[in-house]
Amino acid sequence: MLRGMKRVGVGLLGCGTVGAAALALLAKPGLAERTGAALEVRRVLVRDPEKSRACDRALLTTDPEAVLGDPAIDVVVEVMGGEAAGPLVARALDLKKSVVTANKLLVAKSGRDLLERARRAHVDLAFEGAVGGGIPIVRTLREAFASDRVTRICGILNGTSNYVLTRMLEGGLDMAAAVREAQELGYAEADPSLDIDGHDAAHKLGILAMLAFGAEVPFGAVPVEGLRSVEPVDHRFAQRFGYRIKPLVVGRDHGDDVELRVHPALVPEKSVLANVSGALNAVLCEGEALGPCLVYGRGAGGLPTAVSVVSDVLDVARSIAAGAAGLGTGGIRFAARALRDPGRAEARYYLRFTVRDEPGVLARLAGQLGAERVSIEQLVQVGEEGRPPLEGGPATVVMLTHAAPAARVRAALAPAPFMLEPPRMLPVEDV
Amino acid sequence: MLRGMKRVGVGLLGCGTVGAAALALLAKPGLAERTGAALEVRRVLVRDPEKSRACDRALLTTDPEAVLGDPAIDVVVEVMGGEAAGPLVARALDLKKSVVTANKLLVAKSGRDLLERARRAHVDLAFEGAVGGGIPIVRTLREAFASDRVTRICGILNGTSNYVLTRMLEGGLDMAAAVREAQELGYAEADPSLDIDGHDAAHKLGILAMLAFGAEVPFGAVPVEGLRSVEPVDHRFAQRFGYRIKPLVVGRDHGDDVELRVHPALVPEKSVLANVSGALNAVLCEGEALGPCLVYGRGAGGLPTAVSVVSDVLDVARSIAAGAAGLGTGGIRFAARALRDPGRAEARYYLRFTVRDEPGVLARLAGQLGAERVSIEQLVQVGEEGRPPLEGGPATVVMLTHAAPAARVRAALAPAPFMLEPPRMLPVEDV
Repeated sequence: MLRGMKRVGVGLLGCGTVGAAALALLAKPGLAERTGAALEVRRVLVRDPEKSRACDRALLTTDPEAVLGDPAIDVVVEVMGGEAAGPLVARALDLKKSVVTANKLLVAKSGRDLLERARRAHVDLAFEGAVGGGIPIVRTLREAFASDRVTRICGILNGTSNYVLTRMLEGGLDMAAAVREAQELGYAEADPSLDIDGHDAAHKLGILAMLAFGAEVPFGAVPVEGLRSVEPVDHRFAQRFGYRIKPLVVGRDHGDDVELRVHPALVPEKSVLANVSGALNAVLCEGEALGPCLVYGRGAGGLPTAVSVVSDVLDVARSIAAGAAGLGTGGIRFAARALRDPGRAEARYYLRFTVRDEPGVLARLAGQLGAERVSIEQLVQVGEEGRPPLEGGPATVVMLTHAAPAARVRAALAPAPFMLEPPRMLPVEDV
Repeated sequence: MLRGMKRVGVGLLGCGTVGAAALALLAKPGLAERTGAALEVRRVLVRDPEKSRACDRALLTTDPEAVLGDPAIDVVVEVMGGEAAGPLVARALDLKKSVVTANKLLVAKSGRDLLERARRAHVDLAFEGAVGGGIPIVRTLREAFASDRVTRICGILNGTSNYVLTRMLEGGLDMAAAVREAQELGYAEADPSLDIDGHDAAHKLGILAMLAFGAEVPFGAVPVEGLRSVEPVDHRFAQRFGYRIKPLVVGRDHGDDVELRVHPALVPEKSVLANVSGALNAVLCEGEALGPCLVYGRGAGGLPTAVSVVSDVLDVARSIAAGAAGLGTGGIRFAARALRDPGRAEARYYLRFTVRDEPGVLARLAGQLGAERVSIEQLVQVGEEGRPPLEGGPATVVMLTHAAPAARVRAALAPAPFMLEPPRMLPVEDV
């Protein structure tokens, strides 16, 4: 430690993959010089102190109070995850300790309450690690866009979903095989539904909407559509139109209201987002003045997340050492804002129909769309295995529409006797 | 202004495109609430107060002392550009005013001196706008990577060069026509050499190397190769091998020394960097723990640069209001570091030879390379207009080598009687 430098005490709640990686980063030389504070890890809460850990055993405790009650601990690092962490984080803030967390469920669910506690106590609540692992998206929205108005965010925030769609496209796998492969590689959980059904991405979008649009998003309020309806044939048709299917989160600030949605969507194949493959994450933000700004990197994993966590710790510690605790959090402002009815979400759409090929089917399809004022931009019709359709046999009709509200497009897909399967519908996002 | 809120006085040096855009952003509502400080623009230095300006004429002055000597000005925003700004910025720092600048020439040339003055005076020197316009790359390196070690940076930092190469590839233009088009669109200066020859990108790389590797890079020390040797045929061959030619800056920290280079290079066509087109900029940073992290956006232009400038002003003002001026700058550490001899830069290389097609030419070429231990990975040989070569006629031989140091590759390109033109050589950067 450098002479005369202020000490900043750090306590960890949890010591799993992220916690252990954070301890390793905190032990590296040079941090004190860069921070203006000597960081001292004083206590690490674990469930089982017998398991071998990444730090001095004398620091381990199974009692949360040993962390929260230590007056020399200025920064509490919450890396235990899950909802059980909520009361501990709230108490730490009330005790005037700054908190760094990587817990997206907690921030998505209780962000408003926790940020208010932090503000009242004049301490920081930092959560870069809660969204997009190692990607500095919280920092970018909070700081780089501080002087601008964000109009749109559009991102790939679930690595498992992105891996699965990438493998369907590039490896020709069906969804079940791609999910199995992701599980074998450790990208997907044993129960992949939180990822594949879009809920994980929706939690992250809620947090980003708070930072980007100042919107308080009630937990569970983001309309979500998972990947399960995407079939290999959709990738081939998307490619034929010059697009790729990606698992997107989309947020738009319309002024009067905010539009949020999570779904697989077509993005132009030459766009940067289309080229974000595998387990990587990316977020494109658009500012009124700044225009587009994209950040991209590893969206999960112990080490990348730990970098976000420890960089937050350094920020917070720097403020504490300068006698300005709470500096980073004070600027986050949000309020209840109207969320746009998902039916009003306007986009171009990719539609796929499986129909019996008989005279007049195309005319009837076009009529159904026309009745809802949905206009067709491009259309492809093929029979089985890409051959021209045989009369009476099944045919696939795929189209891209011009922009229309989701509700009208959905109404235009009403069942008809010539449809052999329910139609498929994916939005196109121009990025 | 909110009651009881600290006032932070702002003075501008210069009021051109960036300055006027910055004033417009500073006039927007809500900044005080987000910053915890009421920003007050007190003085704007201009050359000609008669020209219509973006602010109250009473604020205009032609005397720098009216800005520097005003004790109520806490933050000086330098957007006049050029080297003449140097003494004014130095004096502002010595007078304990924080400085925000978008002047890449100044930071590249005098960054070390100015940062030391800032540190001595306990004020900030912020310069997000000096590199990559609206891209938050300074912030990302300084903050997001604070807990990590950056091992490589690889970026597209000159929009004019990127536009020219993009148009050569996509529009089939030759370089002169692409440069003219860039000039007509306002992307390129009347004298485009600072851009096309790589010097502008080299200044920016010098600044990034300071932040990423803690390296003090003497002005002019970065080896630079411009675009002028790239011909349309090189784009076609690069594409055939699965690459695109991009104007890159590359920095690597080898521990013992730092490697810096600016040149057109081949990047894999599926990489995100290959898909950064036109006037956009991007920087890929790689951290030991974080892995890859890319930021992308508008690299130039009044508004995007002004967003970076005003976001810096808000950061600096927030620290001042909290009584912690100088907080952001204190952590920047750098030292003289050895720069690697450009001849030792190891890469795979793209080589193009124009040769007389006669028996044994390929064997002799392979022999020249083999003598320097440069090994060939792929090779294509074609005659005029892509036809098989005619004996005695000119032939083009294009190859990709395995990794080898630049000096050995260059030695292997020694003139030989069968070469009709000097060989061309471009590095391949795997990103």
